[in-house]
Amino acid sequence: MLSTICIVLVNPSHPGNIGASARAMKNMGITQLRLVNPEDFPSDHARARASGADDILDNATIYDSLPAALQDCHVIYATSARSRHLDWSNVTPRECGEQVANAKTSQTAIVFGCERSGLSNEELALSHYHVQIPTNPEFSSLNLAAAVQLICYELRLAQLDSSTSSLTPTNEIITAGQLYSLYEHFERTLTQLEFLDPKQPKLLMQRLQRLLSRAQLQKKEYDILRGILSAVDRKLR
Amino acid sequence: MLSTICIVLVNPSHPGNIGASARAMKNMGITQLRLVNPEDFPSDHARARASGADDILDNATIYDSLPAALQDCHVIYATSARSRHLDWSNVTPRECGEQVANAKTSQTAIVFGCERSGLSNEELALSHYHVQIPTNPEFSSLNLAAAVQLICYELRLAQLDSSTSSLTPTNEIITAGQLYSLYEHFERTLTQLEFLDPKQPKLLMQRLQRLLSRAQLQKKEYDILRGILSAVDRKLR
Repeated sequence: MLSTICIVLVNPSHPGNIGASARAMKNMGITQLRLVNPEDFPSDHARARASGADDILDNATIYDSLPAALQDCHVIYATSARSRHLDWSNVTPRECGEQVANAKTSQTAIVFGCERSGLSNEELALSHYHVQIPTNPEFSSLNLAAAVQLICYELRLAQLDSSTSSLTPTNEIITAGQLYSLYEHFERTLTQLEFLDPKQPKLLMQRLQRLLSRAQLQKKEYDILRGILSAVDRKLR
Repeated sequence: MLSTICIVLVNPSHPGNIGASARAMKNMGITQLRLVNPEDFPSDHARARASGADDILDNATIYDSLPAALQDCHVIYATSARSRHLDWSNVTPRECGEQVANAKTSQTAIVFGCERSGLSNEELALSHYHVQIPTNPEFSSLNLAAAVQLICYELRLAQLDSSTSSLTPTNEIITAGQLYSLYEHFERTLTQLEFLDPKQPKLLMQRLQRLLSRAQLQKKEYDILRGILSAVDRKLR
């Protein structure tokens, strides 16, 4: 359902883009806006560009970190202009729309980076999927609100298409808060186990995160993995 | 081909929207911009919002009527927010993209009306097809550049579809033999860890197997998991 999708803007620098994003969302029937450390908000510029989508702006929630904004989300898509060195689970905007329409998860987030630099690798690693908008390789940087517009359009189209779809993957996928605490537990335990060298942690943890996010863990599976790590912790004490 | 598509803006009132439309076009690899009686052009506002798509603005051609702008075009699509009393040949943006990609015509035009009122019935009547963007019926008016962005996106996607597939290749998924040896390693280590009770093993191992098989492990991920288990084994000795 469109009502369980939130759009998350990370460090948006231009309030006009926040307003234009709110308008783009409302045009497509999506209402939940979350802002991580916006440079200038609330703002008259945002309101002007929202062109009547004031309710989206009024109800926007503000966070001081991306993990905080994602705590209650079950499936997270991060948008990125180009593929990074680690190949995460990449999907097209259309595939993103179809997946969200077919899923029965209760809260989905679509994350957009700031205008200048997009999302950092650390921010990208907080997601389950990366969505790449296919652009002209020689001029690939979309306006922020334009990117929001395209993704919200695909989300809406897929919902319209899928009133008939019967594919229903899964229930009970863990929240991002649980997933991140599992990452931390792995990191602690693997460090104590001397399998992870804190001086060279990067790639190992990124690979594990990619694997664990891709698996879309159910609560039972999460409990098992936490249980295994705790059993290792006890032996190490 | 994208090079034979022109975007026609009729009476655009805000130069910023012309610039943002130029950017949206270039992002999607479409270069021909035609303007019918723009209120304010050329303009610094247009250039600022184009964010580097200056070439599109520099090469834009200006006309004093819509028929003049369409003279050399073979197929014309007119965009409209809602259906009018005349039921024309309506297509969705996706159908528009597919038709254009499949057509062998030498010049296609996509026509957008002014911000306030869209295209008049007379202007709509100059087209072969009407394209309607599916929007929230309670908030249907898209920003002009956002509408250009969506249509150009569909035009580009349809062109790409005919040549390339977007799906990420499956690289290096482990063999079933490797997967089964991983199951066995988990079972041995978890037993030694006293996390798995050999008298009651069934459901735990089944759940782990389901998780590990579903994840479609790559060789690197497999190596990491084997490495973690071996590190635990060493500590337990």
